[in-house]
Amino acid sequence: MNAKRVKAYGTQTAEADLEQLIIDRRDITPKDVEITIEYCGVCHSDLHFARNDWGFSVYPVVPGHEIVGRVTRVGTDVTKHKVGDLVAVGCLVDSCRSCNNCKQDLEQYCPGWVGTYGGHDKHLGMQTFGGYSESIVVDEHFVLKVPNNLDPVAVAPVLCAGITTWSPLRHWKVGKGSNIAVIGLGGLGHMAVKLAHALGADVTLLSRSPNKIQDALDLGADRVVISTDEDQMAEVQGRFDVIIDTVPNVHDINPYVGTLATNGTLVIVGYLGPLDPFLNSMPMIMGRKTVAGSLIGGIAETQELLDFCGEHGITPEIEMIPIQDINKAYERMLKSDVHYRFVIDMASLKQ
Amino acid sequence: MNAKRVKAYGTQTAEADLEQLIIDRRDITPKDVEITIEYCGVCHSDLHFARNDWGFSVYPVVPGHEIVGRVTRVGTDVTKHKVGDLVAVGCLVDSCRSCNNCKQDLEQYCPGWVGTYGGHDKHLGMQTFGGYSESIVVDEHFVLKVPNNLDPVAVAPVLCAGITTWSPLRHWKVGKGSNIAVIGLGGLGHMAVKLAHALGADVTLLSRSPNKIQDALDLGADRVVISTDEDQMAEVQGRFDVIIDTVPNVHDINPYVGTLATNGTLVIVGYLGPLDPFLNSMPMIMGRKTVAGSLIGGIAETQELLDFCGEHGITPEIEMIPIQDINKAYERMLKSDVHYRFVIDMASLKQ
Repeated sequence: MNAKRVKAYGTQTAEADLEQLIIDRRDITPKDVEITIEYCGVCHSDLHFARNDWGFSVYPVVPGHEIVGRVTRVGTDVTKHKVGDLVAVGCLVDSCRSCNNCKQDLEQYCPGWVGTYGGHDKHLGMQTFGGYSESIVVDEHFVLKVPNNLDPVAVAPVLCAGITTWSPLRHWKVGKGSNIAVIGLGGLGHMAVKLAHALGADVTLLSRSPNKIQDALDLGADRVVISTDEDQMAEVQGRFDVIIDTVPNVHDINPYVGTLATNGTLVIVGYLGPLDPFLNSMPMIMGRKTVAGSLIGGIAETQELLDFCGEHGITPEIEMIPIQDINKAYERMLKSDVHYRFVIDMASLKQ
Repeated sequence: MNAKRVKAYGTQTAEADLEQLIIDRRDITPKDVEITIEYCGVCHSDLHFARNDWGFSVYPVVPGHEIVGRVTRVGTDVTKHKVGDLVAVGCLVDSCRSCNNCKQDLEQYCPGWVGTYGGHDKHLGMQTFGGYSESIVVDEHFVLKVPNNLDPVAVAPVLCAGITTWSPLRHWKVGKGSNIAVIGLGGLGHMAVKLAHALGADVTLLSRSPNKIQDALDLGADRVVISTDEDQMAEVQGRFDVIIDTVPNVHDINPYVGTLATNGTLVIVGYLGPLDPFLNSMPMIMGRKTVAGSLIGGIAETQELLDFCGEHGITPEIEMIPIQDINKAYERMLKSDVHYRFVIDMASLKQ
């Protein structure tokens, strides 16, 4: 298949900084949409993948799965999008379309899902490259519509940070009357607070940092509980119907299980790995409590979220950077020094 | 309050064998039912409590919370039961009746629930005594009706082993089309197999013991997977909607999480304590899988189960023993040498 050479930012090895690369984008198939990328959010996963923290990176790596741009070409069979549309692409660019999960709009749980970067492009027969680039070619099913009333640069993190918290809020039926807690106020956590608040829930931020209190209240939290303060934690024992746990590192979830109400669910969305220390089944049994995991969201659910953000005027809090600052941004992200998501202005790639 | 002295079997210390004791039963209040106990099932919890394995036993201990008997007296306000009725009492004899859980028929999650033994009898101002005794006095709300077509001796284990597996099967909506696994084929496990089968589910027993295969198939399992056989476990990866985990000791649940389908739930009902080794969040996130706990069941749900057993002619597999054999029975239970539940013929207490 023919390919088009485009500018991108990525890395050839786990140890190197990101730098400008030239990559191949496939020619559009009848179902494809070509998008000129205007903005791309910066996710923790970008850094993990660039540095091979999970051990399965394929180089070169071009990260980026919070993509917003304009349609510049469409395949002959495309019906969902047209040239000039403001569109978005998230973490998925393909799936099998025929398994039970795909049939239920749960493409993120399809065993054959293709990640926006580090997946397998069956047309080109090589790895997929993400949104730190001039343009991208994606099957129309995986291209989302961006509401016109939202600031395009601020929309980008909705595609990962937003949907990762939205999907469990919806799956576990959060709404008016729900008592919700969010653990951690980073890229994911700040979106969880905004979205749960907009859904009508009573929202508590559980945080170790007293300096997050004002921000959390401004974002829509009803209160902040300092999780290292035993008295404050004692006051919220048995309170929460759903907890969205966005902490990206290994941590003890047992104290949070104690804050779940009967039938409550703690949903892990930020940390992939063994839960050290041991999870105690006793309080889970004594209150029919559950611990769950949740991964991003399906395409229909992501569109639902974008539409919800449009209706409610919700966008993430972002800090725009030129692509040339990406390595510095990674270092700041490692120190949690970001309020609350970096978004790359892809126009800077032309410089 | 007046009390009546009745014969029982129990222990004064954690170290001693069970022996005959005389205990107090309260006089009936207007809402109470007095029951002459005919049969009492033998639960693992009886042994744990008699031996203070959980550290909160109050002596003397009279175990037994799988009670079947006849009503011999009723209080002036009792409307649900009458003298001569065949009735049953399970793990609960009181709760606050006013909290959110009580209002939703989830008395087992009431912070003020009173266990049939080792709880607090507010009328007598002392610990409650269980069913290894001649008679018991219980508020009518906590007294269940036993269907007339069932063998009373075999009904007893429905009150704990039965409801402990029924409640999660119902809560997680198991029925026709569900793929269910049961881990372990003891008192709880054999009831989980019978009940899930009767609910129309496809039932797999996961067991370490090849010698359980024929029994499991006879009880209603569609197949048995030997959990120590990697090839057999590989064949059921991603298969189960609900797993009822009845294993009473610490064990690694990670291999079982792998056998859950997307949105599947593993429910721990047999083991209270830290889950060693660490639970890995990765497969939970990649398939929106959950790990939950569940405790016995509420009173309405227990009556629902008894009625279901009556309609479907289901009773546990039991071995009847005289009370004088209880210490031997405990030793056999520790070796899993019971098919599948001991039930004490309480007439033996008169000898």
